[in-house]
Amino acid sequence: MNYNEEALLRHKKYKGKVSISSRMPLETKDDLCVAYTPGVAEPCRKIHENPDDAYTYTAKGHMVAIVSDGTAVLGLGDIGPKAAIPVMEGKAVLFKKFADVDAVPICLDTKDPEEIIRTVKAIAPCFGGVNLEDIASPKCFEIEQRLERELDIPVFHDDQHGTGIVVTAALLNALKLTGRRIADCRIVLMGPGAAGTAIIKMMLAAGAKNVIACDRRGILYPGREGLAGHKKELAQITNPEGLRGGLEDALAGADVFVGVSVGGLLTPAMVQTMAKDPIVFALANPTPEILYEDAMAAGVKVMGTGRSDFPNQINNVLAFPGIFKGALRAKARDITPAMKVAAAHAIAGAVQESELTPDHIIPSVFDPGIADRVADAVEQAWKSGKNE
Amino acid sequence: MNYNEEALLRHKKYKGKVSISSRMPLETKDDLCVAYTPGVAEPCRKIHENPDDAYTYTAKGHMVAIVSDGTAVLGLGDIGPKAAIPVMEGKAVLFKKFADVDAVPICLDTKDPEEIIRTVKAIAPCFGGVNLEDIASPKCFEIEQRLERELDIPVFHDDQHGTGIVVTAALLNALKLTGRRIADCRIVLMGPGAAGTAIIKMMLAAGAKNVIACDRRGILYPGREGLAGHKKELAQITNPEGLRGGLEDALAGADVFVGVSVGGLLTPAMVQTMAKDPIVFALANPTPEILYEDAMAAGVKVMGTGRSDFPNQINNVLAFPGIFKGALRAKARDITPAMKVAAAHAIAGAVQESELTPDHIIPSVFDPGIADRVADAVEQAWKSGKNE
Repeated sequence: MNYNEEALLRHKKYKGKVSISSRMPLETKDDLCVAYTPGVAEPCRKIHENPDDAYTYTAKGHMVAIVSDGTAVLGLGDIGPKAAIPVMEGKAVLFKKFADVDAVPICLDTKDPEEIIRTVKAIAPCFGGVNLEDIASPKCFEIEQRLERELDIPVFHDDQHGTGIVVTAALLNALKLTGRRIADCRIVLMGPGAAGTAIIKMMLAAGAKNVIACDRRGILYPGREGLAGHKKELAQITNPEGLRGGLEDALAGADVFVGVSVGGLLTPAMVQTMAKDPIVFALANPTPEILYEDAMAAGVKVMGTGRSDFPNQINNVLAFPGIFKGALRAKARDITPAMKVAAAHAIAGAVQESELTPDHIIPSVFDPGIADRVADAVEQAWKSGKNE
Repeated sequence: MNYNEEALLRHKKYKGKVSISSRMPLETKDDLCVAYTPGVAEPCRKIHENPDDAYTYTAKGHMVAIVSDGTAVLGLGDIGPKAAIPVMEGKAVLFKKFADVDAVPICLDTKDPEEIIRTVKAIAPCFGGVNLEDIASPKCFEIEQRLERELDIPVFHDDQHGTGIVVTAALLNALKLTGRRIADCRIVLMGPGAAGTAIIKMMLAAGAKNVIACDRRGILYPGREGLAGHKKELAQITNPEGLRGGLEDALAGADVFVGVSVGGLLTPAMVQTMAKDPIVFALANPTPEILYEDAMAAGVKVMGTGRSDFPNQINNVLAFPGIFKGALRAKARDITPAMKVAAAHAIAGAVQESELTPDHIIPSVFDPGIADRVADAVEQAWKSGKNE
């Protein structure tokens, strides 16, 4: 199937991907008087008395806003809010399909962080959560942090944390396969942008001790000239060995490479300097940092990419539907690091150890019950957190 | 049926009234690659090249935002955005049921007009139209005018124009029944707020020449002390006879009374001073300006109220679904006065002259084809307007 051609055909034929549907019968005059005036006044009154009753009498508890300003859409970049709609609608139907979460695409006609924050806060009353999507780095960090702090519903930037969770899930199983403990590994991450930063923090939260972040200028370390913002912060929490130099220097002897950078950047020669049975997640899209065949020939033991035509696709769809399902069910105010780690373990645990092979370290999005598994773990982690 | 009790039960049982559903198949890996990555990039690219393609490849062309700040909800007043959700969800399911329009409740956590305008403009890209709802007067006037001017999609404050259209439809048929021409009637409107102002403008657009507006202080006329804002504007376009005095003075000899004011305000004695076979629309809710039985006893020929338990319910549901369906189909930028008048005639015309009786001047919302009738008329009026 030519996906591009078929996508144009289907998007036109179906007039986009989302519809609204009614949860309540509307066949008779009585039905109308219950769903609308005069009956509807009664749930309004109840919520006016106790605003939390919005979770009881409205769709708030299962509604998520998928918010984007269209500044970092897929590999297409800053294509604007209208051109971003197909992606947000896609996300919405995946939410519905995999977790029965009702998500509304909201594409914003502004790129200003303050205006984005203000708008999301203004539209929050109808929603039980906010999924930020395809918002450029570094403004995505501030937008998420501010909204997390200023809203009483969970806010989750999927490009950051969805990726972080699924990569961590894949890593957990790759470590099992190669007989490693996460605390003993040297993990090198190339490309500390939005996703890269989240991956690093997730791996640290999951028990990693030795993560090294590299950008185009080489290894991050405290005091490196010109470091600012999130990279300055990363330099403080990574690279405990105090390495200096380039990606090559970081990779020599490393156990794991994670790339969220540029296609073709990882050479077979660099792979050959890594520890025995190295693990490579080459997530650049559409061309990975190293091609599957080249990686295998160079001795990589377990490999994952962002693509569906290679084994071990790192696919956010494994995470976000269940994450929100669990957070909504728990009426969580935030999505905490513990909830994210629990989600990663739930995804990893969906592949039984007896089924683990180098080409099968993560479940398929169509495996039944994935979202529920994730949702249960996330809900449980929120409840445990509250009791601590 | 006790509507209040049943409303609480059903709203809780169904967890509110709206869901998102998918318009595209999502059963196979190929389906996913078409609805989401990598295929989805292609419609994104097309829209990036030509933003109007959002109408072709996304749901924009059938999506409406129902926007409220919760400041004037039903008879409940300023109950806030969360307590307003049940009404907006009700509106959304009526849009779907009667016109297959997909409408999303958006309740705003701000009452500031500038902030409301800014927010609606920011979220506009995903929507083909904006239905403003339950926003207090007088700020609703400025919000609607500014959004109409500043957005390239139609904006429609239903509390104003939906009511104006349905009252005018009812009036057109009441005039047929009583053998009157609209241009010859004296029409007295009590309560020139948001709905009242729109009713007056609609009736003038439909051919009325002699409309008199009254507020608590009496008849509006140019130069009346303390007149400001929309009332000052109304004084300029109404009361061609230059009457002064109170409601009683306006009513003596009048053909039509329209009340959007306070229950019980119209006495049988006042009705008896009106012209023969008077027409009364007593729209105060839940208690009309005069009760049906009292009005009939006082000689009223045709009466309408806002209630479903009396004949001739003036129900906005007759208008807004078809209005938006037609405006969306036409890709109209605005909803013009001509489109509103066309809608009123379409609603009036849905009751055949042979079926007209004093107790049946407007169709039932369940009459098949009402929304399509209205949509056709509205679409046609937009196209005619563009050719003028």
